[in-house]
Amino acid sequence: MDAALKHLERNHDRFLNLLLDYLKIPSISAQRKHDADSRRAAEFIRARLDEAGFETGFFEGKGLPTVHGARLVDTKKPTLVVYGHYDVQPPDPLDLWESPPFEPVIEDGEIRARGCADDKGPSLALVLAAACWGKDLPMNLRFVIEGEEESGGTVVYDYLKVHRRDLADAKAVAIADAPGIARGVPALCYGLRGIAAVEVTVKGPARDLHSGTYGGSVANPATALARLLATLHDAKGCVAVQGFHEGARPIDDVERKRLSKLPFDERAFLADTGSPALVGEEGFTTWERRTARPTVEINGIFGGYEGEGSKTIIPSRATAKLTCRLVPGQDPKRVQDAVARHLESHAPKGVRLEIARGHTAPAAYMDPETPWAKAARAALERAYGCPAALTREGGSIPVVSAFREAGLEPLLLGTYAPGEKAHSPNERYHVEDFLACIRAGIHFFGAPPA
Amino acid sequence: MDAALKHLERNHDRFLNLLLDYLKIPSISAQRKHDADSRRAAEFIRARLDEAGFETGFFEGKGLPTVHGARLVDTKKPTLVVYGHYDVQPPDPLDLWESPPFEPVIEDGEIRARGCADDKGPSLALVLAAACWGKDLPMNLRFVIEGEEESGGTVVYDYLKVHRRDLADAKAVAIADAPGIARGVPALCYGLRGIAAVEVTVKGPARDLHSGTYGGSVANPATALARLLATLHDAKGCVAVQGFHEGARPIDDVERKRLSKLPFDERAFLADTGSPALVGEEGFTTWERRTARPTVEINGIFGGYEGEGSKTIIPSRATAKLTCRLVPGQDPKRVQDAVARHLESHAPKGVRLEIARGHTAPAAYMDPETPWAKAARAALERAYGCPAALTREGGSIPVVSAFREAGLEPLLLGTYAPGEKAHSPNERYHVEDFLACIRAGIHFFGAPPA
Repeated sequence: MDAALKHLERNHDRFLNLLLDYLKIPSISAQRKHDADSRRAAEFIRARLDEAGFETGFFEGKGLPTVHGARLVDTKKPTLVVYGHYDVQPPDPLDLWESPPFEPVIEDGEIRARGCADDKGPSLALVLAAACWGKDLPMNLRFVIEGEEESGGTVVYDYLKVHRRDLADAKAVAIADAPGIARGVPALCYGLRGIAAVEVTVKGPARDLHSGTYGGSVANPATALARLLATLHDAKGCVAVQGFHEGARPIDDVERKRLSKLPFDERAFLADTGSPALVGEEGFTTWERRTARPTVEINGIFGGYEGEGSKTIIPSRATAKLTCRLVPGQDPKRVQDAVARHLESHAPKGVRLEIARGHTAPAAYMDPETPWAKAARAALERAYGCPAALTREGGSIPVVSAFREAGLEPLLLGTYAPGEKAHSPNERYHVEDFLACIRAGIHFFGAPPA
Repeated sequence: MDAALKHLERNHDRFLNLLLDYLKIPSISAQRKHDADSRRAAEFIRARLDEAGFETGFFEGKGLPTVHGARLVDTKKPTLVVYGHYDVQPPDPLDLWESPPFEPVIEDGEIRARGCADDKGPSLALVLAAACWGKDLPMNLRFVIEGEEESGGTVVYDYLKVHRRDLADAKAVAIADAPGIARGVPALCYGLRGIAAVEVTVKGPARDLHSGTYGGSVANPATALARLLATLHDAKGCVAVQGFHEGARPIDDVERKRLSKLPFDERAFLADTGSPALVGEEGFTTWERRTARPTVEINGIFGGYEGEGSKTIIPSRATAKLTCRLVPGQDPKRVQDAVARHLESHAPKGVRLEIARGHTAPAAYMDPETPWAKAARAALERAYGCPAALTREGGSIPVVSAFREAGLEPLLLGTYAPGEKAHSPNERYHVEDFLACIRAGIHFFGAPPA
């Protein structure tokens, strides 16, 4: 361990320069004109894996390659998969950047460049952590670094299917593609919400009707839809759909207490949304509402006239697109059924409903007390000098589900400060967090669970 | 009177042929390429007025001319204005027509052509009625036949402003541009609803937010809008806005009884709408709901994602376009204020409202027992062989308000069968109704109020 940490100290500047070189490559996976750049980024990270003694390769599919590398030191020792991505978000709008997005600079201890925090910094850090161990690496490592995370590509999923057997020796996957909970405080995220989409169309007259001639004598589908949607929540902001909460695992007192102690900056969060206030289900904190409580959200609503001025019609139809966010224990298909039943049974008179079920994904709960999770937390604590916060997140991360399906325990590591503007102009990454993430890797790779 | 009616009998076929010639002119005011046709139609109807001994002219403005004609037989006798329009709706969709829209045919006693019922037939009929009286016309007549009724033009309004003085000798205006109440049953419409437009936008976050990361912790503007709109009506379908009904003249028992006896075919009305059922405010009939009760209708609603599939966002805003239909006694501006106050006071927490007031027009109530109204009803009864039904309509007719403002009592005559498909393909007009409308004109012009 000491030798590895010393290696880091001696190579400090070299590692930082490597990151700056990596950040100069505009590997924007969403843009075909940058495909050659993206491949250069793939070659770059593959070269670092080569230098660290990995057997590397490209998995090619429909799109940009997934880089893989294996270093198997002893089949009797445990094996960890490390996931990351070498592609970045488009930098637009360019005029909001204070320095060019692909000309990295270091100022006030921060690196400024597209992709520094998401995810070139953290994923390179873990490759370099392996390099620090040299020939003494105490466990087996397999890196999977894809190139289409930011553009919704599927090459990595094909890789997981095709190479499922190769990964059979591994029990866990470290995913260092998330923020921590506060400046200098890393996190292990153990919960993600699932999703269930439902679309409802309220149909009334066969055509748009003149609201003067007919108004008052037939049901207005937009009014009917509004009245219907108003029944989805009760006065306390709780979802009021019978059967919706079936199976949902409650947040127990221990967890609530822990979540309440997270150093969560609610004022900064509110400012980030731009909403007039934070509101939600009565009896829950903001963090619980956005990560650990199920929701029904209207993603879109439309019907009738949208142009300038007014058009005096009763629209023939009105539609709402809904998605439910689900917590562990809820069955997405049963939630869709419950919502559909609720809508049907609350439909106002004089209209017909059309209900379409959309995509679903279950919530994920990853026990933070397993040997692998404890090992990851211990490594983060040693590297950052404070315990890793245990958190949940409100969204779904498709690659987490894919790894779970491949039989691996996902370890979702939050290694940089929140507010680093991933996906926004002026993305930044604290140099300290880069070094801490390398240290975290050194500690993690050096102390696998027994 | 007898001589005039005899004249009609003798000229029966000639008059019908005149109408067919008139219908051959595609005077589609909405389409510039038909401007020459529209002017031909104006010349055509002007020529008929010339033949009937009128002093005629074109009032030119920004668009198609308004034809005017005066025949002043004796300044001591009463003067009536007769309004009509020579333009027609576009005939699209053409492929739904069973015979070409501008090649009129007569089948089963019906004329089939665009504009036959709306309004070339009825307005020509009244010109011909004047012609039937020849030099013995018992009252003064002023015709105003505009060319932009179907396209929302303003030339006729300019005419009414500029020639206000010329019309000062007239006390009433006959407007034969409405259907009767049933086949063979004419109508006098004495009530029109007014209008008050209000647009409400619910604003939440500064940008569309990820519904996974933020869902549950901020108010969703689409949900807030739905909950807000759901408060506009009570469970009985009555508008639940405080102050909304202020001043609204109730429908008294005498009127309700009369309206209930109208030969209104509710099944045909329902079939026309294509709605699953007729529904509305509890305690009122369909006819009352659509003509004599005030409403709040959503004309359009929109916010967030409208495309295919789903986009998991909390929309930053959602908008509803509302129009209220008003009954006599309601003040449109006060109604807008009441709706705005209601929306503000029912706004859910965590959102801001933006409310914009749109156009307004008061309802119209035209006493059906005035001497002029009685004279019109008597003429209709003699011509059609049954009493004219006294009705109200649910829409607003701008020209009615304009004539009222010019100091004239509008007499809204329903002279053809409902269901003649004005504005739709295969518009038709019963030959019998054309002749009855000429007779009605003869009777009306022959028996002015004392």
